[in-house]
Amino acid sequence: LPPELPRVVRTLAWRGDALELLDQRRLPLEAPPLLCRSVEDVREAIRTLAVRGAPAIGVAAGYGLAIAARESSAADWPGLERDLETAAGRLRSSRPTAVNLGWALDRVLAAARAVAPGGPKEVRAAVLAEAEAIDADDRARCEAIGRAGLDLVPDGARVLTHCNAGALATAGIGTALAPVYAAHAAGREVAVLADETRPLLQGARITAWELAESGVPVTVICDGMAGYAMQRGKIDLVLVGADRIAANGDFANKIGTYAVAVLAREHGLPFYVAAPLSTFDANAPDGAAIPIEERDADEVRASRGVPFAPPDADVWNPAFDVTPARFVTAFVTDAGVLRPPFGESIAAALGA
Amino acid sequence: LPPELPRVVRTLAWRGDALELLDQRRLPLEAPPLLCRSVEDVREAIRTLAVRGAPAIGVAAGYGLAIAARESSAADWPGLERDLETAAGRLRSSRPTAVNLGWALDRVLAAARAVAPGGPKEVRAAVLAEAEAIDADDRARCEAIGRAGLDLVPDGARVLTHCNAGALATAGIGTALAPVYAAHAAGREVAVLADETRPLLQGARITAWELAESGVPVTVICDGMAGYAMQRGKIDLVLVGADRIAANGDFANKIGTYAVAVLAREHGLPFYVAAPLSTFDANAPDGAAIPIEERDADEVRASRGVPFAPPDADVWNPAFDVTPARFVTAFVTDAGVLRPPFGESIAAALGA
Repeated sequence: LPPELPRVVRTLAWRGDALELLDQRRLPLEAPPLLCRSVEDVREAIRTLAVRGAPAIGVAAGYGLAIAARESSAADWPGLERDLETAAGRLRSSRPTAVNLGWALDRVLAAARAVAPGGPKEVRAAVLAEAEAIDADDRARCEAIGRAGLDLVPDGARVLTHCNAGALATAGIGTALAPVYAAHAAGREVAVLADETRPLLQGARITAWELAESGVPVTVICDGMAGYAMQRGKIDLVLVGADRIAANGDFANKIGTYAVAVLAREHGLPFYVAAPLSTFDANAPDGAAIPIEERDADEVRASRGVPFAPPDADVWNPAFDVTPARFVTAFVTDAGVLRPPFGESIAAALGA
Repeated sequence: LPPELPRVVRTLAWRGDALELLDQRRLPLEAPPLLCRSVEDVREAIRTLAVRGAPAIGVAAGYGLAIAARESSAADWPGLERDLETAAGRLRSSRPTAVNLGWALDRVLAAARAVAPGGPKEVRAAVLAEAEAIDADDRARCEAIGRAGLDLVPDGARVLTHCNAGALATAGIGTALAPVYAAHAAGREVAVLADETRPLLQGARITAWELAESGVPVTVICDGMAGYAMQRGKIDLVLVGADRIAANGDFANKIGTYAVAVLAREHGLPFYVAAPLSTFDANAPDGAAIPIEERDADEVRASRGVPFAPPDADVWNPAFDVTPARFVTAFVTDAGVLRPPFGESIAAALGA
């Protein structure tokens, strides 16, 4: 394995005075570069999903404050602080639920305050340095997950994934896809079967695109085909991401993940969940403590203006589901692979 | 239960000199009547999916020959036979794989030949009578399935179904949905959860529409949501149709059915398969003998012009899957409910 894993798809990059994003709004057809020169540019990019995925949003928001620090003409700390807080408020309201967004903004503001006595120039440097540190941390976490999961993806492995927990959701090589990219970088033959992931099609639109760009063979299937693919011996292991993991190992992820987990166990296939330690919620004892967002019915009724169901059809549209810990073979984290009993291995990793 | 079950959605109806279809091409938005006055009208309606579902196609083709017999100006049997055979050839080539299509055409042609010595007038009457008999037989089979399955759908039942094996696939009240319509007619509260059924969305487009038209509460979900719905206690039983059933009870149905069966067993839910005896294939000892059609990748890559995946993405698109008999609680047929051991109950039903 090379000392630094190759990263073909770059979700974002700091360009000295502006943030360059890979614009995800036109996927699966193309992802042209999008240069954000102002705080409002960054806010609009987050709001309209040009950049998405909780880790990537956090990194983009951090650079948004770096732009705000540059934009500000304040000559003293109180003025600069006011401008930074105004910018943070604008960025914070760009998406309602992403935890990383507020966390990244608070981290950058704290770094600014820590050096405030040094004056505006020092603050501006600290803000950019902190944004870059958040970026580097995220890349390092992805890479650590990839290295930890490498041995789980042997030569010739055919991996099923659901939704997108790939490079395009992070600043690095992703979470669920990190072990795939690591195996690919190690010269192993690895192929991915990507669930299209209705209703929002993150698998078909995003996962398929980024794997193809990175040279990893990928085949798209409809969500209802995964069980049949397992039955026909087309899958060796499952790798998915997680939105929140409870202390006992129950975890929430994109709707449809639970069905994949049940099918994997039926077929005796390993089912791995890849996520950084920051995804574990020690305050949630089990899956029952994880709230599940239900989203607008129109996401199911139609796709980009094309009607799929009668316009007045009743629809149930939960965005996530909870998979009990007993279906999980192991968690692949930036602190290594955690195996059952998960209550103990998770507590040990979080306490470390 | 009323002596004849109400049939709100009428897929087709003979109008004295023409075949009236409920045009399914604009579903889920509307299904206006379509009058077929010529053999070519019927052929075009079958070819373009204005009418679909193997039983409904067979009934439509039978009436197509009744129209051919009327259209023919032949004054003797050889001339009329030639016109009927020409029409049968046109109708037979309208869809490549529907078994009922060829079977219905052969049945009507045989009825014509049986009365040929009586002259053209008698032949024309026999052709129409046989088409009407095929229609009546299909309606009777659906109704028998409904009555047989009535006791499996108790008051308050919440039924999950996959794809469309409803009224719009037959001349009657459907197969998988027949017990639902029977329970509804019996005054029981019954509600349906309909998998949207990617890639062609028969659940969202067709099942949701016909149930709503018939006054049965229906909620559409994406295919990946069924497992979570079971986990949350939103489903009491599963009812699906079948395209072919092997002698041991393994059966083929729309892709995604197998995943639903595995999930139903995980949750201890009854899993019923409704189909007429004509769907059982005594020559197929088990599921391995059932060939599975793989369809065009573009069905998955895009839906009605909306791109879902990169245009050059690799796609696997099996149209059906095979569910092993061990997942089936019972088969609901026009000859009653068949329970395990299926080798014996199926042989007894087919031998009767």
